[in-house]
Amino acid sequence: MRVLVLGGDGYLGWATALYLSQCGHDVAVADNFVRRQYDFELGADSLVPIESLQVRTAAWRELTGKSIEMFVGDLTDADFTYQMIKDFRPESVVHFAEQRAAPYSMIDRKHAVYTQVNNVVGTLNLLYAINEIDRDIHLVKLGTMGEYGTPNIDIEEGWLELEHKGRTDRVLFPKRPGSFYHLSKVHDSHNMEFACRIWGLRATDLNQGVVYGQQTAETMLDDRLATRFDYDAVFGTVLNRFVVQAVLGHPLTVYGSGGQTRGIIDIRDTVRCIQLACENPADPGEFRVFNQMTESMSVLDIARTVAECYPGEVTIDHLENPRVEYEQHYYNVTHSGLVELGLEPHLLSDTLITSLFDIAKRYGDRANLETMRPGVDWRGTGGQP
Amino acid sequence: MRVLVLGGDGYLGWATALYLSQCGHDVAVADNFVRRQYDFELGADSLVPIESLQVRTAAWRELTGKSIEMFVGDLTDADFTYQMIKDFRPESVVHFAEQRAAPYSMIDRKHAVYTQVNNVVGTLNLLYAINEIDRDIHLVKLGTMGEYGTPNIDIEEGWLELEHKGRTDRVLFPKRPGSFYHLSKVHDSHNMEFACRIWGLRATDLNQGVVYGQQTAETMLDDRLATRFDYDAVFGTVLNRFVVQAVLGHPLTVYGSGGQTRGIIDIRDTVRCIQLACENPADPGEFRVFNQMTESMSVLDIARTVAECYPGEVTIDHLENPRVEYEQHYYNVTHSGLVELGLEPHLLSDTLITSLFDIAKRYGDRANLETMRPGVDWRGTGGQP
Repeated sequence: MRVLVLGGDGYLGWATALYLSQCGHDVAVADNFVRRQYDFELGADSLVPIESLQVRTAAWRELTGKSIEMFVGDLTDADFTYQMIKDFRPESVVHFAEQRAAPYSMIDRKHAVYTQVNNVVGTLNLLYAINEIDRDIHLVKLGTMGEYGTPNIDIEEGWLELEHKGRTDRVLFPKRPGSFYHLSKVHDSHNMEFACRIWGLRATDLNQGVVYGQQTAETMLDDRLATRFDYDAVFGTVLNRFVVQAVLGHPLTVYGSGGQTRGIIDIRDTVRCIQLACENPADPGEFRVFNQMTESMSVLDIARTVAECYPGEVTIDHLENPRVEYEQHYYNVTHSGLVELGLEPHLLSDTLITSLFDIAKRYGDRANLETMRPGVDWRGTGGQP
Repeated sequence: MRVLVLGGDGYLGWATALYLSQCGHDVAVADNFVRRQYDFELGADSLVPIESLQVRTAAWRELTGKSIEMFVGDLTDADFTYQMIKDFRPESVVHFAEQRAAPYSMIDRKHAVYTQVNNVVGTLNLLYAINEIDRDIHLVKLGTMGEYGTPNIDIEEGWLELEHKGRTDRVLFPKRPGSFYHLSKVHDSHNMEFACRIWGLRATDLNQGVVYGQQTAETMLDDRLATRFDYDAVFGTVLNRFVVQAVLGHPLTVYGSGGQTRGIIDIRDTVRCIQLACENPADPGEFRVFNQMTESMSVLDIARTVAECYPGEVTIDHLENPRVEYEQHYYNVTHSGLVELGLEPHLLSDTLITSLFDIAKRYGDRANLETMRPGVDWRGTGGQP
């Protein structure tokens, strides 16, 4: 199967490209390297050093004999997007190529506008390119569990069968996202549902939980194949950040009481979910949604789990919550769709956390404590991080 | 009360500015005149000639002694938006300043992207400007009934109390809009609800039905105060278009069977609704939604009503529907919020339609039949109109 991975130089895009290539698919990656640019802006960096995309793909070819074609450009550039789809003629497009950090979108007006324009226009261009070039191309798009917010009802997989005043309908699950980033993905989802409805496109929206872990079977083959490990307050995901804090002897920084509960997923399950979505495409006209997470945990429970696993002493600090979110709430999520396709979840284990400690220890001297302090205030009017 | 009307040179913005000024409010208008630019692009024009904004405001001052301040600029230019809010310091901002035609957004990729970026970024800039300058400013934003689509359940006013698996929540009403334009308004609504939630802003979202009519008590004072009367296939609203077709002896062009039912409202009720929303602001933190329509009619019933009122012969043509929409569907809308604030609806009457015939007759020699042919195909891949 020909699979084009957009955002293929990023944390998950790169690991996904390797996994799909290893599975025998004919893989290409596209990236504009803006994720590396955000690091310069924020003075942050991946804890694990990463190679350029050129070195990465060359190393993969050297080690496995498999080649991964590379497209360098920006989805908001429609000419680039159309030409890439025409040149590679994918059967599936896996779309990771969005600004993906909630705090980054909340820095100030410019970052909010940038995030929404970048994400919405990139996806619109892609929908039009697929519509005009080949409506049979299956779009596998990364959404986020954060699109739903924390409703007081069970979270279903994208759609909701509801009854109201004695009548019934199947509707898009009502969403109440928590940042301008999360909102950009809600906008994308609405645009995609419309494109499926009017043009008969096939799309799968993967509402992913918070990802943890840094290694897959493929990235472990060689240091040159490593993917990012972000631990800063803007791009770092919470479990990865706690691991680095534990290893550095820094308190784990829990926002508020830590009762806020989120869906989580191991990076090894992420890449498998993408494979399952690609190999089992949505039907023509179908806007299919899966909740791509394997278990739910509160932020405080994640911190306690990391603290308990760590052989040394770990303290937990409760910081004033810079976000606006419920810290006590109902949270029950349906996430059976991907399991029905064959996902066998890796649940969070001591073994995984121990391996993350090893990574953090190996590269601990590269850590920059400054970047771990939350500098973006949801209630503010645009303080720089 | 100080009220800033954004898009104050447009069909409804201008009539609203006059009405609020007549009510004794201190009114300013802002516009970038892009609506006049769309006419050049499409080779279309208002049937009723309209004056420049400078002549309009001067005539209003000459006739009533009331002045309307004018800001010329674009909401997507944040510097302009911030400076205008700082200079005028409104208590209410009435926001009509968006690309408002579904067919225009469906012309091709460029028009879809333009519509979403223009509308979403303009509103984001405004939300940030209010947040940073004065959180007490009440935002009165024009949405559209088209955001809801045609669900199989009753359409409530923006929010839905729902029960699911024995639990309850109050959620944003799930939406299934019918064009990239309607989607842009759905995106706006989500962004606004978030801004109210995290910053405590006050906002009223007015999901307006299809507007008909061209005259208000104020615009009738002098020809120089006339507002637009659009009858082309891109910007013309359906009843206004049918009136012109009847007068010109052209068949009324119904898309498909015409069973598609929509909420409708008289322009005189539109301006009154805006006044009621401004004078009864939302609470701090409240995202309030009203369905701004007074009755529902199918497109075929609108055509038949026009045909019956017209003294001459009128035929009705059923064209292949260029849109993707249900032509038979359930449609029952709650629209009591504005009535509770004091709206006394003008329902569609023979008298109103007769007055529209008079307008169409007076200016019939200005009509361009070419522009009435539907040239934008929802299913297509970007044919020019």
